[in-house]
Amino acid sequence: MARILTGIQSSGRPHLGNIMGAILPTVELSLAPSHEAFIFIADLHSLTSSRDAAQRLESVRAVAASWLAFGIDTNRSVFYRQSQIPEVCELTWYLSCFAPYPMLANAHSFKDKSDNLALVNAGLFTYPILMAADILLYDAELVPVGKDQKQHLEITKDIGAAINLHYKQPLFVLPEPRISEKTPLVPGTDGRKMSKSYQNTVDIFLPKNQLKKQVMSIVTDSTPLEEPKNPETCHVFNLFELVASTADTQTLREKYLGGNFGYGHAKTALLDVLVDKYAEQNQLFNSYMNDTAALDAALKKGEEKARTIARTKLARVREIMGF
Amino acid sequence: MARILTGIQSSGRPHLGNIMGAILPTVELSLAPSHEAFIFIADLHSLTSSRDAAQRLESVRAVAASWLAFGIDTNRSVFYRQSQIPEVCELTWYLSCFAPYPMLANAHSFKDKSDNLALVNAGLFTYPILMAADILLYDAELVPVGKDQKQHLEITKDIGAAINLHYKQPLFVLPEPRISEKTPLVPGTDGRKMSKSYQNTVDIFLPKNQLKKQVMSIVTDSTPLEEPKNPETCHVFNLFELVASTADTQTLREKYLGGNFGYGHAKTALLDVLVDKYAEQNQLFNSYMNDTAALDAALKKGEEKARTIARTKLARVREIMGF
Repeated sequence: MARILTGIQSSGRPHLGNIMGAILPTVELSLAPSHEAFIFIADLHSLTSSRDAAQRLESVRAVAASWLAFGIDTNRSVFYRQSQIPEVCELTWYLSCFAPYPMLANAHSFKDKSDNLALVNAGLFTYPILMAADILLYDAELVPVGKDQKQHLEITKDIGAAINLHYKQPLFVLPEPRISEKTPLVPGTDGRKMSKSYQNTVDIFLPKNQLKKQVMSIVTDSTPLEEPKNPETCHVFNLFELVASTADTQTLREKYLGGNFGYGHAKTALLDVLVDKYAEQNQLFNSYMNDTAALDAALKKGEEKARTIARTKLARVREIMGF
Repeated sequence: MARILTGIQSSGRPHLGNIMGAILPTVELSLAPSHEAFIFIADLHSLTSSRDAAQRLESVRAVAASWLAFGIDTNRSVFYRQSQIPEVCELTWYLSCFAPYPMLANAHSFKDKSDNLALVNAGLFTYPILMAADILLYDAELVPVGKDQKQHLEITKDIGAAINLHYKQPLFVLPEPRISEKTPLVPGTDGRKMSKSYQNTVDIFLPKNQLKKQVMSIVTDSTPLEEPKNPETCHVFNLFELVASTADTQTLREKYLGGNFGYGHAKTALLDVLVDKYAEQNQLFNSYMNDTAALDAALKKGEEKARTIARTKLARVREIMGF
């Protein structure tokens, strides 16, 4: 059974794009018998870009609540908030003494920001080492990475290998990247990729009247009501197809092609399927959001397990390095 | 009562130069009613330059044993090994997100090494932030610094002030430097400043026969036995004067000036005063070195107090930053 580790940005309430692109595939992977999944909310990392305490706490809660709502099995997977296991910061220090400075200075993530160094904080410079600690602390074997994080996984392996070599023992498991499978392209209300930064999101955890507003704002063309419409080029249809059953999708396709079916009707159909399909998740999400104690309790098992593993590994590191 | 904080390098068994220049003045300061002293052995810092576990453990023990032997009052002062309170690493991460990259890149300590960046590890680059955490974690008000560390204290103040300003509250005490008073110049066996790197040390914790070898190797001039000698230019006399009583020093001075008194006699006098004066410290040092449990017990009180203060401060930091 391979141990797979995934860090989640604590960037607030996930929208449909996050759900289709990250939550559902990761939850599915975490339930596969061949994997033991470690999934954590990377709130320590968020301090490099956001200093607002209330916003961070709210974001972390929303992320935790939504992943739980979408079926993370906290008995099977180790689901935790990064900051609840601050031992990772201690490991970060040890690792940093084995990371050559140029390894960080040459990282793309830093070079991309080097136009205006005064705005770059030291955390942004060193975060690849915190990421290495996230991975090495838990003996992760597989780390799903996108293209932009591939170099950071190389850094992780290099640091881990340097330490193993220096102390002549396999202290750290050297992780392999797991190239993420093609994730569905989820269009936003303006047709571009759904993203918070474009303000084109569809947020299924919103109350129905607010979700309706988003769905109704999806951009469509001006084909008159009575004429047949092309489903494949319509963002409403594209979203419907991602969410609805094959049969319902086929039915909708026929209505598009048949004419006398307006985009307003299509949007109503999309709203209905969103509300219907995610009713249970919506209810779970909201109950976690309204009950911090319940959320903490749901995370407790994973955090205890993560803490035990972290402390055991750290004790070994301290012994080997002489602390 | 001002809280004063001093970090000690864990660089092995202190020699006479360390004792006269660092241990005695700091212990004296720690006993002053006007100060509450926090004194820690900076073993986490030592990883930036030394990876040898056994050597680190031995160095830390030797440093702890010698400071205890020279009268650190563990009821009055907070004496601890830095790595026993790893909370400092967590604070380091938080601080690093408020430290502009150029603040570190422009530090003298880094610039001095920038000729050969491949040999500089990230820990060497970021250690001023660990140092800031050492200070800010404990609300230190005064930090004795030499010239080479003054900039790091500025960095500490800048980071602390930036956080206080951002969160609009006096979370961190901003420390002031305490410019170290003139420390005595302790000559080594070759007349240069006593230093491990010159291999010219006098190690009072050595067994007498080995100490004798060091003392006998002190460089002297070739004035014949019967002629008067200049005490002020003689390293043997200079060392004797630093250690012996005024009366004994005057007696020795007269012998130098009277002639028929050889350097061998002077060295024997120096050896005798070293052995006699530090007999108790020598015995205490060796008993701590031979009994790890006793050493741990002596450090326990300070480490518990430091840990409590660290955790309280860290809880406040986490609350304010949203963790």
